[in-house]
Amino acid sequence: MRTRFQQGLDELKERLLEMGGLAESAIELASESLRKRDGRIAQEVFEREKLINESQRAIDEMGVDLLAMQQPMATDLRFVLAVLKINSDLERVGDLAVNIAQRSLNVAQEQELVIPVDIARMTTAVSTMVRRALESFLSAKSDVAQAVLQMDSIVDRMKDEAFITLVAQMKKDPERIRIYMDVLLITRSLERIADHATNIAEDVIFWVNGTDVRHNSRVATEPDSDRPASQ
Amino acid sequence: MRTRFQQGLDELKERLLEMGGLAESAIELASESLRKRDGRIAQEVFEREKLINESQRAIDEMGVDLLAMQQPMATDLRFVLAVLKINSDLERVGDLAVNIAQRSLNVAQEQELVIPVDIARMTTAVSTMVRRALESFLSAKSDVAQAVLQMDSIVDRMKDEAFITLVAQMKKDPERIRIYMDVLLITRSLERIADHATNIAEDVIFWVNGTDVRHNSRVATEPDSDRPASQ
Repeated sequence: MRTRFQQGLDELKERLLEMGGLAESAIELASESLRKRDGRIAQEVFEREKLINESQRAIDEMGVDLLAMQQPMATDLRFVLAVLKINSDLERVGDLAVNIAQRSLNVAQEQELVIPVDIARMTTAVSTMVRRALESFLSAKSDVAQAVLQMDSIVDRMKDEAFITLVAQMKKDPERIRIYMDVLLITRSLERIADHATNIAEDVIFWVNGTDVRHNSRVATEPDSDRPASQ
Repeated sequence: MRTRFQQGLDELKERLLEMGGLAESAIELASESLRKRDGRIAQEVFEREKLINESQRAIDEMGVDLLAMQQPMATDLRFVLAVLKINSDLERVGDLAVNIAQRSLNVAQEQELVIPVDIARMTTAVSTMVRRALESFLSAKSDVAQAVLQMDSIVDRMKDEAFITLVAQMKKDPERIRIYMDVLLITRSLERIADHATNIAEDVIFWVNGTDVRHNSRVATEPDSDRPASQ
């Protein structure tokens, strides 16, 4: 019985990592769609998101079934609960990649526009957070997860800088406010992906260490962060 | 044993509803802080959010303990899982109320500004969604939860209209772009609260009916919705 249960846990882990791979590739494709201003790449993100949604349902079902049939204890229980939470975070990452891809279609209309913020650099930081968070899950290493928490404030700062730059640019060039707004909302979607990476890292720490690290790991730098500093 | 378990479930429900009350009041206060342009009310939102965070931790612990000690089956298992998810949604509602309150402090700097979108109307719609979602949880009625899902597209539409109005206003009055941006981001926070209400309603349906209604209940109207339409 224990062996079959162990198999179930292993399969759950594998499926979640597959889904993580899909979510990572959705972020990369969304960023590429923006960089190349190519609508076909945006289309690939939409396809990827469908797979992510299917995957989420399957993992949720497997997780709930494991809880119902096997009634795991202690670490195994925390593992399954962490998987269910991470699953939901990855699904949101897919949604946010779709938002970025959709906005990249607007930006593609203005082929000659020079985007005044370094989206590629921000995307790299965010993708790294997601990848590290998934690595910490794969290796069950809470120190790797801790490192992800540290990175969140870097991305928050990038978002704040982008905000200031873009508002200044809008004032200078009001005719293009709409398109700068798309860019601004892309940076916010990226920052929200970073928040989900942080959630994943926190769930790994909860699973591995049995401790809840929320509400004391992070300091938000700008009012609209998803997880504000308690004032 | 069963009785003590039942007591545990009842207590969990009660605590979650209390937390729901805190989250609702945080939304109302944030909206009032904006309407009255009064920083002291914003401060109350920050205090409320601390209580929400404490409450979240306590509920998470209770829920995990119930799963570990009692190993509930079927409906009871789904109930505890739904509570854990709703708990996390309510915590985010608290965060978003803080975002709104923080931005209301910026808006308060411009006492004479006429806000060109009806934030009060949007807040009412969003608060109603949260309240109905919590009612569906209290009464275990999936038809009430279904009604919440229907309301989400109304709020999405309000957000889209606000976006168009505010971009037009920014073009007309570029000196005030920064403040219109605050208003725009407030409407987006409200829309995200509506998304969380929708999540709560979906979790109630999952608990009551044992069915997963995600990815087929909603149509997003604007690219940046948290749950995009699959293209």
